[in-house]
Amino acid sequence: MAKILLTGDRPSGKLHLGHYVGSLQNRVALQHQYESYIFVADVQALTDNFENPNLVKESVYEVILDYLSVGIDPNIATIYIQSQIPEISELTIYYMNLVTHSRLERNPTVKTELIQKGLEESFSVGFLCYPINQAADITAVEGEIIPVGEDQQPMIEQTNEIVRRFNRIYGEGILKECEALIGKVGRLPGIDGRGKASKSLKNAIFLSDERDIIKDKVFAMYTDPNHIKVSDPGKVEGNIVFAYLDVFHEDKEEIDSLKKSYQKGGLGDVQIKSILFSSLEKILFPIREKRKTISKDFVMDIALNGSKKARKKAMVTLEKVRAAIGIKYA
Amino acid sequence: MAKILLTGDRPSGKLHLGHYVGSLQNRVALQHQYESYIFVADVQALTDNFENPNLVKESVYEVILDYLSVGIDPNIATIYIQSQIPEISELTIYYMNLVTHSRLERNPTVKTELIQKGLEESFSVGFLCYPINQAADITAVEGEIIPVGEDQQPMIEQTNEIVRRFNRIYGEGILKECEALIGKVGRLPGIDGRGKASKSLKNAIFLSDERDIIKDKVFAMYTDPNHIKVSDPGKVEGNIVFAYLDVFHEDKEEIDSLKKSYQKGGLGDVQIKSILFSSLEKILFPIREKRKTISKDFVMDIALNGSKKARKKAMVTLEKVRAAIGIKYA
Repeated sequence: MAKILLTGDRPSGKLHLGHYVGSLQNRVALQHQYESYIFVADVQALTDNFENPNLVKESVYEVILDYLSVGIDPNIATIYIQSQIPEISELTIYYMNLVTHSRLERNPTVKTELIQKGLEESFSVGFLCYPINQAADITAVEGEIIPVGEDQQPMIEQTNEIVRRFNRIYGEGILKECEALIGKVGRLPGIDGRGKASKSLKNAIFLSDERDIIKDKVFAMYTDPNHIKVSDPGKVEGNIVFAYLDVFHEDKEEIDSLKKSYQKGGLGDVQIKSILFSSLEKILFPIREKRKTISKDFVMDIALNGSKKARKKAMVTLEKVRAAIGIKYA
Repeated sequence: MAKILLTGDRPSGKLHLGHYVGSLQNRVALQHQYESYIFVADVQALTDNFENPNLVKESVYEVILDYLSVGIDPNIATIYIQSQIPEISELTIYYMNLVTHSRLERNPTVKTELIQKGLEESFSVGFLCYPINQAADITAVEGEIIPVGEDQQPMIEQTNEIVRRFNRIYGEGILKECEALIGKVGRLPGIDGRGKASKSLKNAIFLSDERDIIKDKVFAMYTDPNHIKVSDPGKVEGNIVFAYLDVFHEDKEEIDSLKKSYQKGGLGDVQIKSILFSSLEKILFPIREKRKTISKDFVMDIALNGSKKARKKAMVTLEKVRAAIGIKYA
C-alpha cells in the first residue's frame, strides 16, 4: 500500500511561481507515488491573519483552484480544508499538554518567522502554537511522508516529539511518527531581486496572472543596473532574468550561450526578457487555460468531498487518542 | 428569563469541605436563582495531570457524585463534562489568535498557580492557555454570571477581553461579556494548620469520608501546641478547631463562650473536637447518606444528558463564531 503523504498551504493569497517551483510541481509528480492528502490550512492562516478573515476565505478557493490548474488530480489526491476537520482542533488541545512552553519558544522556524513578520513583541498564542497544530494535521490523517524545505524540518521534529511523548504516556504505537521528504531547495527570487518571491513583497508572478501582467512583470525584472547599452558587458550573478531562465528555460545549452553573450556585451535586456517570457508562458499558458475551465462549484465540491474523506480518517485518530487518554464516558 | 450561571471544577480528586464552603453550598442556593450550568473540566484537569489520566477519569465520576450528594438538583441545573463538548476545543483555537503571548504570561492567576505547583520552568503550553480555554467554556454556553473567588477575577477579565476583541474584529454583539459573582471568601484552612485545605496537601476532610475517618481527622487537628494540660490557657488564633467551629457550628454564642473558656484554661482539646465532630456530622451525614443512594449509572446518565444539552448550546455559539470569521464553505 502506498504511504500517506501530507502537504498543504496557508491560504493567505494566490499561489505564485515560487510555490510552483518550491512545492506544486513536486506534488504533481508525487501524487502518483503516494496516497496524497493536500490541504488548505485556513485555521492556521488565521493565526497571523485573524484580522483579515476575508483574505483567508477568498484564498481558500483560489489556492484550490491553483492546485487543480497545475495538475493536482482530485481523483487520486485528496484535497481538503483544515477548518472542516474540527478533530484537528481537539487533537491540538490534547497535544498542547505535551509541549512545554520553553520548548515551543525555542522552535527555530517560529523564531525566524516572528522576526520576518516583525511580530516579536505582539504575536498571538495561536501563532506560537501553530507547530502543535501541524502535529495535529499530520497525525489526524496519519501522514507518513511530509515534503518540506530544510527550514521546515524543526516542524517535523516537533511533531515526532509529540508523537513519542504521547505514546510513552498513553500507550505505544497509538500515534505514528512521520518523516520529512526534503526536496531540492526550489527557492525563487523575487522579480525585484530583493529576497525570495513573495506575495507580501509584491514581487511574485502568480499562476493566475494574465499574459499581459506576466509580460509587464518580466520586463520590470531586476537585471544589472550597470548594463545600460546593449553593447555593455552585463552581469549574470544577481540578475533575476538569468536566475529565472536557470529555473524555467528548458534548453540549458542555450542559457549558457546567452550568459556568455550577455557577459561579453551585445545582448540586450529586452532580448533575454523576451526569451524568459516565452519560457514562462510555455508553463503558465496551459495552467491559465485549465483554470478557465474550472467552475467555482467544482472547486468547492472537490474540497468538501475531500474534507469528508479526511475527516473520517481524523475521527478514527481522535477516537484512538480519546480512548488512550481515557476521556470516554459513554 | 433567568440569567445563565456557569461554574465547575477540575476533576483531580474528590471534593472536600473546602469546596463545600468555597462554592458548593453557594451553588445549591444559586441554582434556584439562575439557569445553572455546572461542569467537570476534565480537559482542563489534563493540562497539569496529563501524565495521570486515570485520576482525571475517576474524579469526573466522583465530583459529579459529590455535586448530587450536596444537593445540586439535576432537574434544574445542567451538569456536564467538558470533554463531551468538542466545540470548546475549537473555540479555544480561534480565541488563541486574539490573545498575545505576553498578555497570557502576565496573567496573575496563572503565575501564582505555576509557583504553587512548582511548575515555573516546565509548564506545558496547555497549562499556559487554560484561561483561553475558560473563555471558550464560558462563551460556549453563553455564561453570564460566573461565581469566582477574588483570586480568579483575572480569568473573567481575560474572557471579557477576548469577547471584546472578537466582537471588534468579527462583528459587534456576537459574543457576550460575562460578569464575576464574587462570593464571600469561604477559605478553609487545612486540618494541619498549614495553608488551605487541599487534596494534594492531604489536609482536607472529604465530603465522601466515612464517619470514622472524619473523627480521626478532627481529632488529629492542629490546635495550640502549648495547650498541654486541660487547665492550661489555650490560644484560639491559629487553632484549626476553632477556625472550623466558626464556619460549621451553628450556635455562634456557644462558640464565643467556648473560646473564652479555652483561653482562660479548663477546656480540653478533646471536648472542643467532640463538639466540632458533631457539627460536621450534622452536615456530612446527610451528604454521605444521599451519596449511598446514587448509582454510578445514574451519575453517568445525568452527566451525558447534561452534556447533550450543553453541547447544543455550544454548537450554536460555534456556528455563530465560524460564520463571523467566515470559515463556512458549504
